[in-house]
Amino acid sequence: MFPEVDPGEVDVVVVALEPDLTAFIDEWQPFISRFRVLIIQDPNLGAHKSLRVPPGLNHKIYTAADARGLLGNAAFAVSHVGYLVSDKRIVVILDSSCRPHRSSGSGDPVAQHLTNLLTPATPSYFNTLYDPYRSGVDFVRGYPFSLRGGVHCVLSSGLSEGQFVDAVITVPAGAMMVVPAVNIACDRRALGPALLPPFHVEAPLAEIWAGLCGKLVADHLGLGVKSGLPYVARSCTDIGPSSAVVSAAEAERAALEFFRTARLPRTAVVAADCVRLLAELVRERLGGVHPGFSLLADAMLAWLDFWNAVELSR
Amino acid sequence: MFPEVDPGEVDVVVVALEPDLTAFIDEWQPFISRFRVLIIQDPNLGAHKSLRVPPGLNHKIYTAADARGLLGNAAFAVSHVGYLVSDKRIVVILDSSCRPHRSSGSGDPVAQHLTNLLTPATPSYFNTLYDPYRSGVDFVRGYPFSLRGGVHCVLSSGLSEGQFVDAVITVPAGAMMVVPAVNIACDRRALGPALLPPFHVEAPLAEIWAGLCGKLVADHLGLGVKSGLPYVARSCTDIGPSSAVVSAAEAERAALEFFRTARLPRTAVVAADCVRLLAELVRERLGGVHPGFSLLADAMLAWLDFWNAVELSR
Repeated sequence: MFPEVDPGEVDVVVVALEPDLTAFIDEWQPFISRFRVLIIQDPNLGAHKSLRVPPGLNHKIYTAADARGLLGNAAFAVSHVGYLVSDKRIVVILDSSCRPHRSSGSGDPVAQHLTNLLTPATPSYFNTLYDPYRSGVDFVRGYPFSLRGGVHCVLSSGLSEGQFVDAVITVPAGAMMVVPAVNIACDRRALGPALLPPFHVEAPLAEIWAGLCGKLVADHLGLGVKSGLPYVARSCTDIGPSSAVVSAAEAERAALEFFRTARLPRTAVVAADCVRLLAELVRERLGGVHPGFSLLADAMLAWLDFWNAVELSR
Repeated sequence: MFPEVDPGEVDVVVVALEPDLTAFIDEWQPFISRFRVLIIQDPNLGAHKSLRVPPGLNHKIYTAADARGLLGNAAFAVSHVGYLVSDKRIVVILDSSCRPHRSSGSGDPVAQHLTNLLTPATPSYFNTLYDPYRSGVDFVRGYPFSLRGGVHCVLSSGLSEGQFVDAVITVPAGAMMVVPAVNIACDRRALGPALLPPFHVEAPLAEIWAGLCGKLVADHLGLGVKSGLPYVARSCTDIGPSSAVVSAAEAERAALEFFRTARLPRTAVVAADCVRLLAELVRERLGGVHPGFSLLADAMLAWLDFWNAVELSR
């Protein structure tokens, strides 16, 4: 059904938004039981000393205290504690509000994410709505032969409820996009720290900063990003109003123009270097536009420090 | 159901691939009868003096002799004779191998094309598979507010059979794409001669030249292009092997790099100027790479001459 991957190369990160995970695990068991599951306790659950996890799951729990011990008071979303501490090639990130969607392509959202990552992406030339690597599908007529091999896909961004569309497409190189914090899968070895956590920073575009940076780095490194299947059902969907700072239209426009035109030096060939250089560019070119952008640059470098510290400790 | 358009502002171009259009018109009548229909006789039908068109259709026939009178021996696909002679704001192009697809969104492929053109496009920021202007749909969370107004959509590129996907998306600015010669609709006033005809020229990428040029010009002018619905059923699908010149991989790569990086001057603000300047750039930068590219530049300028001549004659 999907390209082979050793289950030992995959971590599934689950952010626990409530203390009892029984219902969540019951529904996800068929799709996640062959992988290690890293359960991250939401800090708002601090009062509850223990999470309820049904037996039979290969899992590891990170409490709010564990996260604090690791990150101090850094303003990161906890979902990314799991991404940070994982030492696997591939990480799938869910939270306990996610439920498998009945119409999720293969019917197995995790397998769909792995298929997305393990088949090539085609960022250099748009193939309309056809995923050319799907069984029985091919490239559109005339699609340049030199590009049909595709590139390595490093990020699979699934969708939430809303109108269901049975498709996966590569987001073209150069296009900016929103990357949500859950229902995503990442090649952690390749994209590494460039999959930024959501930053709890008061700044224009803070809500989509991770997607802006991650996509720019993936494009720079010649790697691919896909969007579409798998769908998950969520109580909070990814469609609808936004909590973004809306009063800074000029700053927003300046930042979008920055991301549209920013180029990293060719010498930056690993994700960590890209993140550092990008943070420096943000501070240099956007710091004077709005103070929030300097905070975002700080947060990027702080995240990178944590990443490097964890990597060094291995 | 779809935004209002005066039927008098729309031409439907039909390329007649066989002499008897009875079956074709029978199926399309409900969708095209309120528009003027320009029927273009395929040159291979030269022996048949007359086309069979059922009564009740507001139509005008252009025979192969008419096309020759207009274009001489220019190496253009006849589909674009209709696009050239139309004086309407919007042109929808079909050929007689197209049949309405049972799952064509609204069920009315022509109305779907008009909806695509008359609702904004969002080329500056990817909205994954959600068409934000579809009833009941919205932008993804965090989508920049300054971009939610979208831009004017000038080209709607429908699909043929294959896996049916119930979606319309904007192709991001900067992305290269294939634009087929039929099942498309165009804002002729805005995109004008930049919707090139398929050129019968022996050159790398000749089959997709129209899409490469049209998309680059639309991006330069800040206009949008959509892909997806409507689907039509065709005997010849847009998926599958290609007749492109495949032996010139180096030339193909050079041309793709050219289109990825080519920039037109800001002073070019109408489509005709963009086409002329683009043809000159092609000759200058690709003429030495492969002789076919000079032929394509010649064909672009020849097409532009025909366009200007027809416009002047009005």
